[in-house]
Amino acid sequence: MININIEFIKQLSRPTPSKIVLLVIDGLGGLPDTQSGKTELETANTPNLDALASKSICGLSETISPGITPGSAPGHLVLFGYDPVTFRIGRGALEAMGIDYPLQPGDIAARGNFCTVDNNEIITDRRAGRISIEQSGKLCRLLDNLTIDGVRVFSLPVKDHRMALVLHGEGLSPDISDSDPQQTEMVPLKVKANSKTAERTADIVNKFLIRAKDILAEYYPANMLLLRGFDEKPHFPSMSEVYKLKPAAIASYPMYRGLARAVGMDILNTGSSIEDEIETLKHNYNNYDYFFIHIKETDAMGEDGDFEAKVKAIEHVDKIIPDITALKPNVIVVTGDHSTPALIKGHSWHPVPLLLYSEWCRPDKVKQFSESACISGGLGRMPAIDIMPLAMANALKLNKYGA
Amino acid sequence: MININIEFIKQLSRPTPSKIVLLVIDGLGGLPDTQSGKTELETANTPNLDALASKSICGLSETISPGITPGSAPGHLVLFGYDPVTFRIGRGALEAMGIDYPLQPGDIAARGNFCTVDNNEIITDRRAGRISIEQSGKLCRLLDNLTIDGVRVFSLPVKDHRMALVLHGEGLSPDISDSDPQQTEMVPLKVKANSKTAERTADIVNKFLIRAKDILAEYYPANMLLLRGFDEKPHFPSMSEVYKLKPAAIASYPMYRGLARAVGMDILNTGSSIEDEIETLKHNYNNYDYFFIHIKETDAMGEDGDFEAKVKAIEHVDKIIPDITALKPNVIVVTGDHSTPALIKGHSWHPVPLLLYSEWCRPDKVKQFSESACISGGLGRMPAIDIMPLAMANALKLNKYGA
Repeated sequence: MININIEFIKQLSRPTPSKIVLLVIDGLGGLPDTQSGKTELETANTPNLDALASKSICGLSETISPGITPGSAPGHLVLFGYDPVTFRIGRGALEAMGIDYPLQPGDIAARGNFCTVDNNEIITDRRAGRISIEQSGKLCRLLDNLTIDGVRVFSLPVKDHRMALVLHGEGLSPDISDSDPQQTEMVPLKVKANSKTAERTADIVNKFLIRAKDILAEYYPANMLLLRGFDEKPHFPSMSEVYKLKPAAIASYPMYRGLARAVGMDILNTGSSIEDEIETLKHNYNNYDYFFIHIKETDAMGEDGDFEAKVKAIEHVDKIIPDITALKPNVIVVTGDHSTPALIKGHSWHPVPLLLYSEWCRPDKVKQFSESACISGGLGRMPAIDIMPLAMANALKLNKYGA
Repeated sequence: MININIEFIKQLSRPTPSKIVLLVIDGLGGLPDTQSGKTELETANTPNLDALASKSICGLSETISPGITPGSAPGHLVLFGYDPVTFRIGRGALEAMGIDYPLQPGDIAARGNFCTVDNNEIITDRRAGRISIEQSGKLCRLLDNLTIDGVRVFSLPVKDHRMALVLHGEGLSPDISDSDPQQTEMVPLKVKANSKTAERTADIVNKFLIRAKDILAEYYPANMLLLRGFDEKPHFPSMSEVYKLKPAAIASYPMYRGLARAVGMDILNTGSSIEDEIETLKHNYNNYDYFFIHIKETDAMGEDGDFEAKVKAIEHVDKIIPDITALKPNVIVVTGDHSTPALIKGHSWHPVPLLLYSEWCRPDKVKQFSESACISGGLGRMPAIDIMPLAMANALKLNKYGA
């Protein structure tokens, strides 16, 4: 096998005016309903996706490797052409980046949950009854901008009971364990250093958690904080460097904005609906040559195990396809970052339907955008890491390799 | 993913009397005509290739990786089983090897163009009006066999305005820049050393270029020489070492002979037509157990953007298929080194139709040798680097791996 990496692509890429749109329908792939024998996508009425598939080359995207269920971060990085086994990004860094926090080199970030503990400090609800963003915003202000042993600690509300913690100072290390035991009926864990150089950081976080316990004591049900996924800002080459693109992200959920920012995309302001995202695309269409559009609804319905709602979410996406094609991008890629079958109620390892439209795509005979039809597509079962180079080629943005 | 390289194959290969024929139809793959919806190969009447495909296992050859457009050198090396990202070969070395020049270890070769410069030494035509091979042969004799600082300099005519320069001496380095700015309205560049050890070589080349300018001054329009792609003889393991084969190349174009020589094939004398090449195959059939036959016409017509002429060229190739099958090789592989769609007028990234015939091939249901039919073939979308091991296996020339 020939080993192609992002450096290889970088050496071939060239700037052109052509435009690429990547539409990620999160958790797109599914499993067949036991009655009908059809997946969510096969059940959905998707005339626009089917028409686009007919003009496209289709296949199934193997996100990481057969059998591997991807999280959202690797699932997206690979679609941007970054091998997620090489380019790792922690949940904490992601969470901070997703709320537009300007994480600096050397900063340490963690993901936090406000939680409920009883009088014995035992966790009774890891989500503190899913308190509102207003409440967690208020609590974060109490825990924000503290200074511990010369290190500044920032607490940032994210969504519901979720927050991000950022440590800013000299000589910090992300190599520490979680305080979140990820289950109830346990006490919050003391943070431990996994290496000598991380001892001071662990000590600071433990001191912070003691202060947090005191400060939050009177705010039942959110009377404690759990931290996990300590990480630092990732050092990735930007998409502008690698692909000579001017890339923009349109995503209503913070995590996906964070992922896009990690690879150097501009983050466009948008609303919470699919229609808002498409308006944002139209409004900014002339200013960028690469757009990543993220649709969350499908994944959320799959996670809920709601087959019918996922079908409806897919039909909702189908309705905005003509708005994208009307802009006449040179390349349109539609796929998902992974499958989220309603039957599994979570991410899965199943490969994801994939279509790539361009004037030069060499269309196959696939007339329907579905798991079963895409099996016979011209792309076959294609590693997702190859999608970005293929999109670049179809946009005529890659030079020939070798004489 | 399991990483198989040429060393792995080498350890399994064994000599047998069985014979392999690789027919490379250069630039074979295409794109559908906008009217008919059929590619060049799908438009061509190819009863013999179709009949062979019916008895074969078929697929689409992914030359390097999805989206990567290969040059001729990587496109061929990979078909011989050499990973072209590991086994690199420069244009200069290729050019010299392609005119049957016996490049020695330590020699440095470059590709040269006779060009036209005006009174201010500004390049007005990078190809000197495409002077004939007779003219460039005469000019090369004037520049041939010079000695500069103890290094011998050879000038060798290639085709039209193209020549190859070879430096032969001690302590030379290919790590120098081009004198060819690759555009007009610039003066030829002074050659620069990219490293300390290359300074002497750069100095010698610059002295040579000053002498060349004086010598060529009176030969307008070919009154200057541009050099690029300095390189040394590649050090590749030969196909005899790797595969225990006795391989021969039948190619009418110099570059493909050069590529074959780089992997240790014997180069058979042949004429310029497809029929000449087949006569050469018949004549030498008993003396070798591997034949690489190169057909240039298809690529040339694709590069010209002449869809109909490429169709005719494919039909021309189809006519000689029975001459190959009549020899009853144990394995026949037919494919291309890349696609050259007439619509693109150049090499492209699209995978290339591939068939492999042998008694042991496990035929699939593909009855037509075409891009769309091969999608459903038993080989799927297969990396070209795997073709040679598969051909070896089908010739029963590979031992079992492991106990």
